[in-house]
Formats: sequence, C-alpha cells, structure tokens
Amino acid sequence: MKSEIIAVGSEMLTPWRQDTNSLYLTEKLNEIGVTVTFKTIVGDRRKDLVSAIRIALGRTDILAITGGLGPTEDDLTREAVAEALSLTLRREATLVAALHARSALLRVPMPTNNLKQADVLEGATVLPNPNGSAPGQWLDTRFAGYRKLILLVPGPPSECQPLFDAECLPRLRAAIPKRAIAKRTLRAAMIPESQADKFLAPIYTAYKDVETTILAHAGDIQLTLLCSKPSATVAQQRVDELAGRMEEALEDWVYSSGGESAESLEQIVLFYLGLRDATLAVAESCTGGMIAERITSVSGSSRSFLGGAVVYSDALKYAFAGVSPELIAQHGAVSAEVAKALAHGIRLRTGATLGLGITGIAGPTGATEDKPVGLVHIAVSDAQKNEATERTFRGDRTRVREFATQQALDLIRRRLM
Amino acid sequence: MKSEIIAVGSEMLTPWRQDTNSLYLTEKLNEIGVTVTFKTIVGDRRKDLVSAIRIALGRTDILAITGGLGPTEDDLTREAVAEALSLTLRREATLVAALHARSALLRVPMPTNNLKQADVLEGATVLPNPNGSAPGQWLDTRFAGYRKLILLVPGPPSECQPLFDAECLPRLRAAIPKRAIAKRTLRAAMIPESQADKFLAPIYTAYKDVETTILAHAGDIQLTLLCSKPSATVAQQRVDELAGRMEEALEDWVYSSGGESAESLEQIVLFYLGLRDATLAVAESCTGGMIAERITSVSGSSRSFLGGAVVYSDALKYAFAGVSPELIAQHGAVSAEVAKALAHGIRLRTGATLGLGITGIAGPTGATEDKPVGLVHIAVSDAQKNEATERTFRGDRTRVREFATQQALDLIRRRLM
Repeated sequence: MKSEIIAVGSEMLTPWRQDTNSLYLTEKLNEIGVTVTFKTIVGDRRKDLVSAIRIALGRTDILAITGGLGPTEDDLTREAVAEALSLTLRREATLVAALHARSALLRVPMPTNNLKQADVLEGATVLPNPNGSAPGQWLDTRFAGYRKLILLVPGPPSECQPLFDAECLPRLRAAIPKRAIAKRTLRAAMIPESQADKFLAPIYTAYKDVETTILAHAGDIQLTLLCSKPSATVAQQRVDELAGRMEEALEDWVYSSGGESAESLEQIVLFYLGLRDATLAVAESCTGGMIAERITSVSGSSRSFLGGAVVYSDALKYAFAGVSPELIAQHGAVSAEVAKALAHGIRLRTGATLGLGITGIAGPTGATEDKPVGLVHIAVSDAQKNEATERTFRGDRTRVREFATQQALDLIRRRLM
Repeated sequence: MKSEIIAVGSEMLTPWRQDTNSLYLTEKLNEIGVTVTFKTIVGDRRKDLVSAIRIALGRTDILAITGGLGPTEDDLTREAVAEALSLTLRREATLVAALHARSALLRVPMPTNNLKQADVLEGATVLPNPNGSAPGQWLDTRFAGYRKLILLVPGPPSECQPLFDAECLPRLRAAIPKRAIAKRTLRAAMIPESQADKFLAPIYTAYKDVETTILAHAGDIQLTLLCSKPSATVAQQRVDELAGRMEEALEDWVYSSGGESAESLEQIVLFYLGLRDATLAVAESCTGGMIAERITSVSGSSRSFLGGAVVYSDALKYAFAGVSPELIAQHGAVSAEVAKALAHGIRLRTGATLGLGITGIAGPTGATEDKPVGLVHIAVSDAQKNEATERTFRGDRTRVREFATQQALDLIRRRLM
C-alpha cells in the first residue's frame, strides 16, 4: 500500500528547520510494508493545506499529516481536513474537560482559543496524546469513491513518535493486508562507500525480494535489509542469508550485525571493554573531546570509560599525559611518536587497561609543508603493545574530526577483538 | 513572489536521507525577497514527477527542481518537465562533445545512456556545472497563461549550491521586481522560548514589514529579521530598529547581534577570551567532552583554549583536578562543592586564567532520592572568585548534556563580560 506524509508548519519553509518526523514515520511505515511516495511540506495557510490534502488523497491510500494540531490560530489541520473532505467538526465534551483539568494541574490560565484542540472530525477516533495537550485523530473514510486512512498526529517529535507507535501502528497493521516484514541492520567502519558497494552489489542484486539500503556517513556504513513475505520464517531466512553473505564479503569491517537495529561503534567498543573487563582512557588533541563525547553519550559508559584529557596545548600534553617537550620538539606535536606517548601516558596516569592518543591537523589552518590538513596519528596502547596508525582525511574541519574519531574508535575495537 | 521547491530522488523517501538543498535554496530565495510556499519530495517515477511539476506550476511563480539530472535511467527530471509543459528535448552537440571530453579526461568509458545529460528543454538556457557532468537548465516560460521561471539544478549539494549561486541567483534578481533585502540575526542563550516570545511578541508584531523567525534549540535562541523594501537604507533602518528594541528587551541574554549571520556561543566565548588575553581549561564529568568539543570546533581555538579533562571516574577527578576523595565522600560527586573543586583544580593544573568544572546526572540512570536525573552543578573559577550554579534540565541524556553544555558556555561568557 502507498502512503504520503504532509508536514504542516511555516517554520519548515524557512532555511532553519527541517521536517524530521517524516523520517521516523517512514521507517515505521516501511516496517509494516507501506511505502512512502510523496512528502509535502506546507505552511500554516488554510487554503494551501486544503489543496495539499486533496491532492494527496487523490493519489494515496494512507495519509499521515503531522503538525497544526495545537491551540493557536495558526494550527489549522483539523479545519483543513474537514474542509477537504466536507466533514463537520464537533467539540467533544470529554476533551474540553481534559483541557481544563490539564491547565488547572499546570496552574496556567486557559485562553478560549485552546478549546479548538477538542474539535473532532466527523467519524474520527480520538488518539490520546499523553505528552501534550492536542490529541491525534484517526479517520477511516472514503474520498472520491476509494477507502482512505487519514492520520492526524501532533508536530513536536516528542509527541508525534510515541503517539504514532501506540495509536496509529496497531490500527494500520489491522487495516492493511497482512504480510510479515523481516529487518536486519549491518554496520561497518572505515570502508569507503564505493569499495563496500563494489563488494556488495553483486550479492544484493541477486536478492530482488530484499530491499537493501546503504547509508554512509563519516567512515560509518549502515546496511539495512528489509524483506516482506506472507511467511515470517521465509522473510527472516532471506534477510539472514543475505546478511550472512554480506558480512562474509565485508569481513572484519563489519562491527555490528545484531538484530533489527545494530549497535553504534561506541556501543560496540563499550561492549568489548566490558567483556574483557578492561577500561579505557583517551588523550585527544585534534578531536578536542569528540571521542570522549561519543563514548559518554552511551548510558552506563562510566563502567568501562574512566575519562581522559583534551590536550590542545603542548603544556597539557605534558601535564596530563607526561609527553615531554623534548619529544614534541624532536618530532612535532603531530607525529606517531607523540600519539604513542599520549596513549602510553594517559594509560599510566589513569590506570586504564587501554590508552588512546590522537594528534592531527583538523584545519583549515595549521598545515606545514610536509604535514597537510587532515593528517592524523592515532595510537592505542595496552600492557602488550603501543601501535600508531597514520591517516590523512580530506574535507573541512568537522569532517576531518569526525573521520578521525571514527577511525580511533575502530582501532580500539580491533585491538579488543 | 512565490516559489516552490521539488526535490527529486527515491532515496529521500527512505528513513535515512533528507532533502537538505532546499534549506540552502530557501535562504538564498528569501534573501532576494522570494518566499517558499511548498516543498515536495518525489521519487524517481516519471508519472509522479510530471504530476508534481504540474501541481506546483499551477500555484507558484518560480519552481526550483533539484535532482534527477544525472545519467542513469532513474534520472527523469528533464523528461518530466518536457512532458508537463509539452516541450521537446533536443540533444545539444556542444554538450555531447563536453561529455565525451570529460570521460576522456577521467579515463572512464562513457555508456550511451550518459548522453541524455546533453538533452536541453525547448527554450531553456544551459547552466554550466563546473562540479559535475550534468548541467542545469533555466526556463523562462508560460504555463496556463502565466509567466513561470523554472530552474533545473543537480541534486548533489556540492553541485547544486555553487550552480544556484552562480547561475540562478543573478537571473532571478534580474527577472523579479527589484527590492532591497536587509537581514539581521540575534542569538540568545538559556532564555526559555516561551519567555523570549512573551518579551518579543509585543515588539515584533508592531513591525509587520519585518519577517521575524524564532528558532530554538537546546538553550539557544536564534532570531532572524528580514525586511524587503524598494530602498536598501529604509530596509536596513527597519531591521536595525527592531533588532535594537529586541536586544533591549532580552538584555544580557543576547550574546551575539552581529550583522547578517551571528556568531555561535563558542565563537563569542573565544572572542571574549582573546579580548581579555585570557585562557580557559575545562574539567567535565556529565558532559563527557561535549564542552571541549564545541569550543575546539572553532578553528583557531587553540589560541585561548588550553584543553581539559574528562573526569568520569572519581579517581580521575583527583588525578587531573585534585578533587579529594574526602570531598566527594562528603558531598557526593554531583554537588556544588565538587564542581567548584573541579573548576579550581583544572585552573591550577593547567595554568589557565579561567577554569570550568561541571558535574551532573545525565541519565537515564544514576538518580538518587535527592538528586534527580538532569541535575547539574557548574562552576567557573578565576583568580577573583569561584562560583557554582545549580540547574535541573529535563529530557533524555542527549538533551540534558546539550543544555548543560550551553549553560556552561553561557556562564563563561557572563564571567568574561
């Protein structure tokens, strides 16, 4: 079945704000076998909204409309759907009472205008929104002779996503032809996208019944496999078989091949650290805290991650990791020797099992004749050895730092494997 | 004048890829006084594309179509525009020659299919694309009796944006009624959006001729003011007058009110550090490197930022910032006392003018009866004083860390002011 998404809100027609709900809704819709064929972003103008709704209903089975359900004059989704389908709106007493109760609880006065959130489309089911004041609505109706499922969901992602999961997905599953969907995600680090595709294309093109998507960002590749079949067992078999062949082709570039959603590289690093009962500390120069930030973004990381130092100045390289000014003078701050001394020093200072040292030129300034922007030295030190890796990454400051961080995490993973 | 953007490509109807060109194009269009009223994302299906083009031309003056200009069978924008407007396509000999020359230069064979990139719409001007093989096209035509400007630009951002700037903007400026546009951006930190709006709404609603956009993210508010007038002086006056009144209302919440684009909070912090000839070092617990990462994202930050420590474990709080186990035992790791000891300790260890210490509970675990998730203590220490601030931020781990980082940077800014 086909679906469309209309995102309502003038702020999404400015240079600064994207519609992001549609990515989430698309993922969920795909997982139940529904494709998304159009996305429309429309401002808070009733005429435009009515027109967009009519156009979408003329070509799709399922229409999800996000946003425009709030209490202000600009929130016009209910009115626009009513107009587009010639339906009436009734003000529902229980919703009015709930709005009054809510404003009493929050001890804020309620302008009369707020009550429009209690307006329900003729024939619609009210979808409770535990995270906000505006409920969603579900309408199973007909337009120009065909059955249409219309979903009105709130715009704020913190309200939209839980409401869609709890209220819309079960109703959609019940309403659409039953097929089983199997999903599998593989993630690989530091293999160039073109090389991955060269390895993988001959494999996945032979599985026409599995939809393969490749997404690459800053040294990270995510492969998503989706298969829809009448039989859940067959769908899972096809997905697992293809995932197995892909994993074989990509060898140890693959770091995660879990189930429906694969772990991130920092989660995998923390998993291996836990498994080995090991701890990690980092001494970062060019990445300026990005490695620590990624690791500590994982809840529970404090069990294996001790911390580290951001050693931007040479004095701090000495103070926090014991890297001597003489070594820096001899080899330069951006050198394999300094990376190794950082890794070794931070390990000794913190008592961690593993130490990571990184130094490089993130750019755009700082390059010298023999050391270009993007040059990075990364060392991983443990009780057995201390090895440095040299890489040169192209691109702007952000890109160099992101690639260097990804490479560093991948080197830790490989040391722990 | 009104415009619409159609982004072509099935990958933008997956859960993983966004149309980002439209943000760039919207900014540029707004700057010449053109508003964007609809955005449509459509897949690589000719029928859908023809329909989307006809719908857009029925309601807009300017239509920008991004993507679908490449050499593959899926690239159908030229064909779809031709069909929607009943125009012919002619294969242009000079473009065919250029394609042959390009493939010879790159030493790659050229499949015949590639030649479709030399197809030009009847009446269109070819727009050279120095960054790719597919040129853009500019069509000044009529649809249903009205004048329409249609722009075909390539999808990859590295081709789309320079081509739009070099080839489309000058033509649009010449084609649309001449008006001057003045722009001004204000940025403010840590004022709640609702409070900012309460202060600002009475002001900006009195300036109907200035378009004000408020964008809020993680404790950062960006106000963009745009005014379009026949006279550049008058437009600038209006924008400056409104910006001045807003700045007065928001007082020292405003950290940046530069010219066309305002500096980020980390840029402002670095600016003040430079001005005072001061240096900064940070000791981060709950933010795990995010503060250092934000500061070092600015090129040249090494002049004022010495570095710091990510002190996740209590042992590291002692090793890198001299925070004694006794102090932690007495007050708990998440306390004003420990934040102050971190700020003081990191300042002494590094010799920085300013030391920042931060400790908190990012969640979702780690809360105790009297210390909830989101509780953060932040201290700023200099030679004169060492003061701690307590805040409790709501939301998930990422949100708590982002708000805590923003609050920390803002406290440094206020100390330097």
